[in-house]
Amino acid sequence: MKKFSPAITALMDALRVLPGVGQKTAQRMAFQLLDRQRDGAQRLGEALQNALAVVGRCERCRTLSEHPICYICADSERAQEQSLCIVESPSDVLAVEQTGQFQGQYFVLMGRLSPLDGIGPADIGLDVLEARFREGSIQEVILATNPTLEGDTTAHFIADLAKRYGIRASRIAHGVPVGGELEYVDHTTLGHAFSGRKNVF
Amino acid sequence: MKKFSPAITALMDALRVLPGVGQKTAQRMAFQLLDRQRDGAQRLGEALQNALAVVGRCERCRTLSEHPICYICADSERAQEQSLCIVESPSDVLAVEQTGQFQGQYFVLMGRLSPLDGIGPADIGLDVLEARFREGSIQEVILATNPTLEGDTTAHFIADLAKRYGIRASRIAHGVPVGGELEYVDHTTLGHAFSGRKNVF
Ligand SMILES: [Zn+2]
Ligand SMILES: [Zn+2]
Repeated sequence: MKKFSPAITALMDALRVLPGVGQKTAQRMAFQLLDRQRDGAQRLGEALQNALAVVGRCERCRTLSEHPICYICADSERAQEQSLCIVESPSDVLAVEQTGQFQGQYFVLMGRLSPLDGIGPADIGLDVLEARFREGSIQEVILATNPTLEGDTTAHFIADLAKRYGIRASRIAHGVPVGGELEYVDHTTLGHAFSGRKNVF
Repeated sequence: MKKFSPAITALMDALRVLPGVGQKTAQRMAFQLLDRQRDGAQRLGEALQNALAVVGRCERCRTLSEHPICYICADSERAQEQSLCIVESPSDVLAVEQTGQFQGQYFVLMGRLSPLDGIGPADIGLDVLEARFREGSIQEVILATNPTLEGDTTAHFIADLAKRYGIRASRIAHGVPVGGELEYVDHTTLGHAFSGRKNVF
């Protein structure tokens, strides 16, 4: 039984790389892109290729950035703050920024410890983080990983690492629903979680 | 308040062209594509640009095709059949093909009549369809538009058009749930709908 033509099939297959997109959804997306949304499809193709070409990791905090050092790490006022907020993803940076309660810098793990998936300390940049601890300017790490089993494990691991360098570690608390994901929490709740943070040690 | 860097923001905005993708989903997609799925993102960008470059409309049935005449219209055995199945989208062609009950050719509206959205007969290619009726080889049209208000209206409109050319028109029936969409119906049900079709006139 014949299917669609090769270029359409290739597009449908390629669309399935997107999270939550199965075969039926990929089909609808492909037809819409190739029919009613050709301009949007063109923009998407260009935006993808451009972003892939210019976006990499910030050398200092590991977040996605078009520059070797992201705009937050490059901000000299923030660099004078002595607290570092550890998050799992760039969305979490945005979520914390929107609370307006944190003036320091970030470290973005781009994941979390997950031994079952083979994700160890080096995969989430803890070697880079340790080098940063060694610099000596950080006095406190705020552990803002997601309140999931893996996020908690990761936070504990980093707290232990911080302790070795005499750095105070606190975990955000209050209001972040257990099992939830940081980026879906409203600003107010996340703000409370920040102000109500507790020392781990 | 700062957001993400321009190339990432442009990608997030571009992803929202996809059906059902809101701001949060676009964010997650963008991070995943630029971090863990860079190869897949590269393939998606290439597949999009390639498909946009080579995929157009079949001159005969209007479906999406890489060739001026699609593989079904180009099939000389099928061209000898005297029935034409009218569907709304290329997915519907695939759905009908999967029943194995139809050997004729298709005409793909790439939409349906929708006066409120300003979609009239010419927008769904009814001028092209009429030219085809005028050729004289078609004896029956099978109206397989979706069983929605707009799909029914479109089917009636085409039945009237067919009548003027002395062409028998039938509407698929039985089992296709009212208000549902053809491409989500299982093969058996759609097969029943085909064999149980009733003449409109
Ligand atoms: Zn940075
Ligand atoms: Zn065709």
